[in-house]
Amino acid sequence: MNSDKTIKESKIKVAFQGEHGAYSEEAAFKCFGNSVETVPSKTLRDVFSALKKNKVDFAIVPVENSLEGTVGAAYDLFLKYNLKPEGEVFQRIKHCLISFPHETLKSIKKVYSHPQALGQCNEFLGKLGYEAIPVYDTAGSVKMIKEKKLKNSAGIASERAAKLYRMRIIKKGIETNRHNYTRFLILSKKKTRPTGNDKTSIIFSIRHIPGALYEALKPFAIRKINLTKIESRPIMGKPWEYNFILEFGGHREDKKIKDTLKDLERVTTFLKVIGSYPKAK
Amino acid sequence: MNSDKTIKESKIKVAFQGEHGAYSEEAAFKCFGNSVETVPSKTLRDVFSALKKNKVDFAIVPVENSLEGTVGAAYDLFLKYNLKPEGEVFQRIKHCLISFPHETLKSIKKVYSHPQALGQCNEFLGKLGYEAIPVYDTAGSVKMIKEKKLKNSAGIASERAAKLYRMRIIKKGIETNRHNYTRFLILSKKKTRPTGNDKTSIIFSIRHIPGALYEALKPFAIRKINLTKIESRPIMGKPWEYNFILEFGGHREDKKIKDTLKDLERVTTFLKVIGSYPKAK
Repeated sequence: MNSDKTIKESKIKVAFQGEHGAYSEEAAFKCFGNSVETVPSKTLRDVFSALKKNKVDFAIVPVENSLEGTVGAAYDLFLKYNLKPEGEVFQRIKHCLISFPHETLKSIKKVYSHPQALGQCNEFLGKLGYEAIPVYDTAGSVKMIKEKKLKNSAGIASERAAKLYRMRIIKKGIETNRHNYTRFLILSKKKTRPTGNDKTSIIFSIRHIPGALYEALKPFAIRKINLTKIESRPIMGKPWEYNFILEFGGHREDKKIKDTLKDLERVTTFLKVIGSYPKAK
Repeated sequence: MNSDKTIKESKIKVAFQGEHGAYSEEAAFKCFGNSVETVPSKTLRDVFSALKKNKVDFAIVPVENSLEGTVGAAYDLFLKYNLKPEGEVFQRIKHCLISFPHETLKSIKKVYSHPQALGQCNEFLGKLGYEAIPVYDTAGSVKMIKEKKLKNSAGIASERAAKLYRMRIIKKGIETNRHNYTRFLILSKKKTRPTGNDKTSIIFSIRHIPGALYEALKPFAIRKINLTKIESRPIMGKPWEYNFILEFGGHREDKKIKDTLKDLERVTTFLKVIGSYPKAK
């Protein structure tokens, strides 16, 4: 990604979804360093659009969470926008209960956050008898409580969100399951070169006949290519017809992968290579 | 399902997720008739739990939406609770903008609903410049607006929700894409018998080596069994290890399916048959 070098030359701009303090923004800092300029966007579509219109140099989008599964909407947007992943990054999600300094575990009654964050902390919320109220963003919940001066209320967000809005962390690590990671893809307009340790994401569809998926996986199996993800995804406007999202080891410019994709093309009715990018460490 | 007969004998109770007026409740009426007793439940887990504890005779859970994809949480709960699907039902989702009779398209400023419903109506909301505010349930948004007497506000929910809370439908069919269906499974504690037109849902995991999934699909391909769904699903607590959800034509007691599952067992590290049930018409 060569981010250090580029940062010195000019300010890199990266679009992310959510408010300042969001986990996506944290992943952007992890990837590009702290001097990058992060651009908050309301929706995932806005993130793709900002890059498409050259308002930013990169975009960062969540594609999968270790507890919640695939962010299907992100893959739908890959089909709409011709933007290329050029890297992936894993971000540990560690939720904090955040409020004003004078609030305590006992004084809090209502807890606001994104529905997924509330779900991930459901045991903690249940044990303390808090009322869970869903809002559109984790960091946004802390911002809202601060701005509206809400009493007996807390938000669930990252440690960074607490610092950013100058609120207090009442309790750290309140998620039910500690194995909570989100995988993000970094998007740019450029194609990457093979590094020898890459991953490729594709979307394809096949005829709806028995054995069709088995046939589609054959080109990968005979070449011992490691699949890291498969998913049938409903096609918008065509109920119960599916695209398949497939991810595997290798780069689209590797001879082995080129041959595989050529074989795959023969048994698919549609095939789009989203892109190839270095594996996260 | 023989619902007509059973209704006469005693009141059937069906647990569903959401408030009265929810799409899930509508699917329950479609399946069991209007005289069934529907039991609202706060979470999907509560729905499973109500059936497990014999508080209801059946439960109805959404497993897939034609726009949003799989309801992964439902499949996770199938692994936790040993409850059997005994039927499936498809419900057309048709969203209405609902408010007090004196409100109009022009007077409304804020629109409340479940995040998925807001997402499905995003073009309509954007065109009219409404502020979208996520809440936990579609029908619940209408109930809340009514109870709190919120001004310049509307909810997005079903036609039934409007009738139930005696509110007015300001506009019908506001979803971006009309091909919006949700697939529900009906759960009971009993296993079904083959009808000759069934479907089976299973969850399995395999060793993480190249070709393992291809090998797992072979027993289905050689018997020309039609796969209707495949999905890799993260395993809770084991980041980036996956279970696979697979659905296919046939009943677990059919000879062909029995043989298939026996073959499959040899190449999987874990296999659970969720159940077999008659296909929806």
